[in-house]
Amino acid sequence: MPDPALLEAFPTPTDAPIVIEHVAEEFTSRCPKTGHPDFGVVTLRFQPRGASQGGLCVELKSLKLYYQSFRECGIFYEAVTDRLKDDLVSLMNPSWLQVHTSWRGRGGIRSLVRAEHGDVPHRYRV
Amino acid sequence: MPDPALLEAFPTPTDAPIVIEHVAEEFTSRCPKTGHPDFGVVTLRFQPRGASQGGLCVELKSLKLYYQSFRECGIFYEAVTDRLKDDLVSLMNPSWLQVHTSWRGRGGIRSLVRAEHGDVPHRYRV
Amino acid sequence: MPDPALLEAFPTPTDAPIVIEHVAEEFTSRCPKTGHPDFGVVTLRFQPRGASQGGLCVELKSLKLYYQSFRECGIFYEAVTDRLKDDLVSLMNPSWLQVHTSWRGRGGIRSLVRAEHGDVPHRYRV
Amino acid sequence: MPDPALLEAFPTPTDAPIVIEHVAEEFTSRCPKTGHPDFGVVTLRFQPRGASQGGLCVELKSLKLYYQSFRECGIFYEAVTDRLKDDLVSLMNPSWLQVHTSWRGRGGIRSLVRAEHGDVPHRYRV
Amino acid sequence: MPDPALLEAFPTPTDAPIVIEHVAEEFTSRCPKTGHPDFGVVTLRFQPRGASQGGLCVELKSLKLYYQSFRECGIFYEAVTDRLKDDLVSLMNPSWLQVHTSWRGRGGIRSLVRAEHGDVPHRYRV
Amino acid sequence: MPDPALLEAFPTPTDAPIVIEHVAEEFTSRCPKTGHPDFGVVTLRFQPRGASQGGLCVELKSLKLYYQSFRECGIFYEAVTDRLKDDLVSLMNPSWLQVHTSWRGRGGIRSLVRAEHGDVPHRYRV
Amino acid sequence: MPDPALLEAFPTPTDAPIVIEHVAEEFTSRCPKTGHPDFGVVTLRFQPRGASQGGLCVELKSLKLYYQSFRECGIFYEAVTDRLKDDLVSLMNPSWLQVHTSWRGRGGIRSLVRAEHGDVPHRYRV
Amino acid sequence: MPDPALLEAFPTPTDAPIVIEHVAEEFTSRCPKTGHPDFGVVTLRFQPRGASQGGLCVELKSLKLYYQSFRECGIFYEAVTDRLKDDLVSLMNPSWLQVHTSWRGRGGIRSLVRAEHGDVPHRYRV
Amino acid sequence: MPDPALLEAFPTPTDAPIVIEHVAEEFTSRCPKTGHPDFGVVTLRFQPRGASQGGLCVELKSLKLYYQSFRECGIFYEAVTDRLKDDLVSLMNPSWLQVHTSWRGRGGIRSLVRAEHGDVPHRYRV
Amino acid sequence: MPDPALLEAFPTPTDAPIVIEHVAEEFTSRCPKTGHPDFGVVTLRFQPRGASQGGLCVELKSLKLYYQSFRECGIFYEAVTDRLKDDLVSLMNPSWLQVHTSWRGRGGIRSLVRAEHGDVPHRYRV
Repeated sequence: MPDPALLEAFPTPTDAPIVIEHVAEEFTSRCPKTGHPDFGVVTLRFQPRGASQGGLCVELKSLKLYYQSFRECGIFYEAVTDRLKDDLVSLMNPSWLQVHTSWRGRGGIRSLVRAEHGDVPHRYRV
Repeated sequence: MPDPALLEAFPTPTDAPIVIEHVAEEFTSRCPKTGHPDFGVVTLRFQPRGASQGGLCVELKSLKLYYQSFRECGIFYEAVTDRLKDDLVSLMNPSWLQVHTSWRGRGGIRSLVRAEHGDVPHRYRV
Repeated sequence: MPDPALLEAFPTPTDAPIVIEHVAEEFTSRCPKTGHPDFGVVTLRFQPRGASQGGLCVELKSLKLYYQSFRECGIFYEAVTDRLKDDLVSLMNPSWLQVHTSWRGRGGIRSLVRAEHGDVPHRYRV
Repeated sequence: MPDPALLEAFPTPTDAPIVIEHVAEEFTSRCPKTGHPDFGVVTLRFQPRGASQGGLCVELKSLKLYYQSFRECGIFYEAVTDRLKDDLVSLMNPSWLQVHTSWRGRGGIRSLVRAEHGDVPHRYRV
Repeated sequence: MPDPALLEAFPTPTDAPIVIEHVAEEFTSRCPKTGHPDFGVVTLRFQPRGASQGGLCVELKSLKLYYQSFRECGIFYEAVTDRLKDDLVSLMNPSWLQVHTSWRGRGGIRSLVRAEHGDVPHRYRV
Repeated sequence: MPDPALLEAFPTPTDAPIVIEHVAEEFTSRCPKTGHPDFGVVTLRFQPRGASQGGLCVELKSLKLYYQSFRECGIFYEAVTDRLKDDLVSLMNPSWLQVHTSWRGRGGIRSLVRAEHGDVPHRYRV
Repeated sequence: MPDPALLEAFPTPTDAPIVIEHVAEEFTSRCPKTGHPDFGVVTLRFQPRGASQGGLCVELKSLKLYYQSFRECGIFYEAVTDRLKDDLVSLMNPSWLQVHTSWRGRGGIRSLVRAEHGDVPHRYRV
Repeated sequence: MPDPALLEAFPTPTDAPIVIEHVAEEFTSRCPKTGHPDFGVVTLRFQPRGASQGGLCVELKSLKLYYQSFRECGIFYEAVTDRLKDDLVSLMNPSWLQVHTSWRGRGGIRSLVRAEHGDVPHRYRV
Repeated sequence: MPDPALLEAFPTPTDAPIVIEHVAEEFTSRCPKTGHPDFGVVTLRFQPRGASQGGLCVELKSLKLYYQSFRECGIFYEAVTDRLKDDLVSLMNPSWLQVHTSWRGRGGIRSLVRAEHGDVPHRYRV
Repeated sequence: MPDPALLEAFPTPTDAPIVIEHVAEEFTSRCPKTGHPDFGVVTLRFQPRGASQGGLCVELKSLKLYYQSFRECGIFYEAVTDRLKDDLVSLMNPSWLQVHTSWRGRGGIRSLVRAEHGDVPHRYRV
């Protein structure tokens, strides 16, 4: 089951603004109605707070394990996306954060879900 | 015949704004004049209202069955597009909603129809 | 000869604004100077008036037959484009309408002609 | 030698604004320094004045013959481009007109020359 | 270990504004958690100060050697990016500077990190 | 060695604004540190002053010979770019001028350098 | 765990030779060493025996469920491929059968495994 | 330094012939003349002996660690390729085996080296 | 001037047959008629004799310097290709060797020259 | 008019077999019926006889001038191709020779013509 306790963070290395993007192409969970597997790509983009504000970045191996904890979870696309956003915001308290999930499709329908937290710069809103 | 009673919704999981897109590449209906089959791609994009406002999201399997209910229906492209928009707006009462249908063509003519409800953000209007 | 009487329209199904695009890839007419065949692609894009204003949409089979009526007509690219625009505006009285014709070329020269009626939105003017 | 007397025009068919583009991929002239042949693509784009203002459009076969009259002419890329612009402006007195020439290159250098007349709309200035 | 002493600079040759971009496709360092090698592409873009202000440009061979000094270093993506930015800003004191790192991925996750110094022009912010 | 005396110009043929672009794909010089050959693409873009202002255009064969005069020169990328800009500005005194050099790379690093003179229009600044 | 009892077959409809290919892009199992998820594409190709010989074809929904039964199984790429081949040969006793598995990679290494049964025609052996 | 003791094998799962391909896109070693890093892609393809003959397959994580053991080794492209072939043949004693290495290049020269052991089938010899 | 004394070889590391390919994308020499620079891509492919036969491989840095020694040489494409073949055969006495040169072109003509020594396998003769 | 006296040859530099290919992308002649210009690509491929047999290669600048001598010639595609073959065979007496001409087309028809002399190897006959 989704387990945010798997997530680890490390202090952002600077007060200068940095933007970080992690694209996970092997996300899988299950449909809560049929139990069939879903396969998607998760794009996470965020700007951590600066070092002097206690800014944090998610550690990549812990992110992989956290994503893997959805493997047997029955959960809607919308809820996955929102859950990822909330768990990662709780972990890092970033300046802003964006989660896009893109799903290979079920029954001939492909889906995309977008969630955001904070003031995402215009250039990342496309 | 098109049957909006097939549509089911579930509560949107959050008050944060999310944008959802479902691309159905296997839509088929019939020409109301000749009875010949039409084949199209339906792109649905919308922002549900927040959870505390009773926001709703269309359930994907029900959406598939609803789309399938157009299979033997004789109906113009424009009417399909408008009907999809209206039925989905009735179901979800979203902040905004967009339906684009793109048709493989009949008699050497390809067609696209665009319909919108509410205040669609500029970045989705291309 | 071009015969606008072939065109048929049906009432637009809604008061909501919809945008319709028909791309005909098999248009042919004749050069008025040499009599040689010309081959082009005709892109028609328009927004019908709303249902309560008596808005109309061109019926697709009639559009095909109307396009076919240019087959033996000797007519300049510019005149084809303008004629298509005028006949379709007469039929539908749309909010706005756009006709682009793109021709395979004669004597090593490819041509494109663009005509518009009414206030075409900026996003369709590219 | 370049012969603008070869150019013929016909009345623009409408008062509505139309934009016309002719792309000639087989233009050839000669280098005025070495006498070697040059090969280029000429893109002509213009908006004729309306019919009630006596607007004119260049006839396509005459345009081809006019272009062919440069075949043995020794002339710089810049002068070709400017000459084409001037001769076509003299013929048609259009609202605006644009000539782009793109040359295959000589001595490892490819060239492009752009000339304009009148107030070319922003969307064609890229 | 990362060694900024390897970096050399030479005086910018002019007071006119120039923009310089160096794309290194063979960057490698190590994961600080697992010790496994990481592989990335580093894009550096900057505008040096003018010659009369003592402007400096990084010398390319020294940049290569500096990049190679990260080969056995265990360091997070975010810290690499920030470190590159800081060391190069210390060397050159440029008008503005941008470092983008793009990583091939570990555990099915590809990553990108962006850092900036000074007032990066809008056209380079995409 | 770089020899601007090789450059020749001819009068611009018109007062109308024209924009000229020469792309040289076979530029080579030498690294001033190692003596190894460098290979690059030079893109020159400019608007000459009008004929009545004594405007001038660089003659293409002389440009080729001038570029070839860098063949055995040991010179940094930045200095090549600035030198090309200065020599061509001295020759033509254009309204504006742009030089972009793109280098195949040395030690796994590809480079681009951009220099400008005068008020380059926004559409050419990408 | 892999469960060949999930597989169902139906009689091949003809004595004429037919060749059938099923490409599954969403196969996932686990690494038997680390327990981490593996993601691959499975291509199955076979020729059933003719109807009069009791030829059989695998039923598609049962194939999907059978593939899904590997989801939590720790198994090497080579063993997956061989197991798929054996279970499908047991089910159908085809004239020939081919299984290719292509894996997204782990630790920077992508893998492909090919297994065959019977006399695969030359044209499918590339 | 290259360490074949890192390699582990497991018994091939079947007597049926299987062909296995591992493509490693992140191989790096050092030039034995200059000490500079080299970057390449290693393609390994082989057919293990059957299970009843004691056939063996290389385990993937051990292969990754073995490849990583070349990271600080100064070694020619030809010797890397031959060494990989020999160490893997010693480990597995396969029916046949092929190693192709493709290198990003140094001083403007890209290189490929091919080595083979045993009777490689014609279809893999391209 | 072309200087084969720059070439160095090292012993081939094995008796097993290996095939080596070096692609140099930055070759330049001069036209013997006009003195103008030529630019080409040189592809060298060969099989060295085995170690026990005293087989040799060309060392890559020496190959680069040897290629650079043609930089100021006036020489026909055919003679360059033949010369490269002869000098490299003299150096290595390989089982077989192939040199392909591909030239960017002069006066609108691109050229390719192929030379071979010994019994080149059929698969490399395309 | 086509002038084979423009062609010059130089002695082939070797007795080893070499294959030479010249691709001219800027060939132009005239249609013998209408006088309109034709534009084509001429591919010449041949193997000269060896040096000790008095083998000859066509000199590239003379080939360019010879091709240019067709510029005002009214001649069928088939005759151009045959004429090129004959003139070049007369000049060089090669082991074999191939001329392929590919024409941009007139009246919507593109054309290719192939002519050969001597025993062209199978690999060049595709």
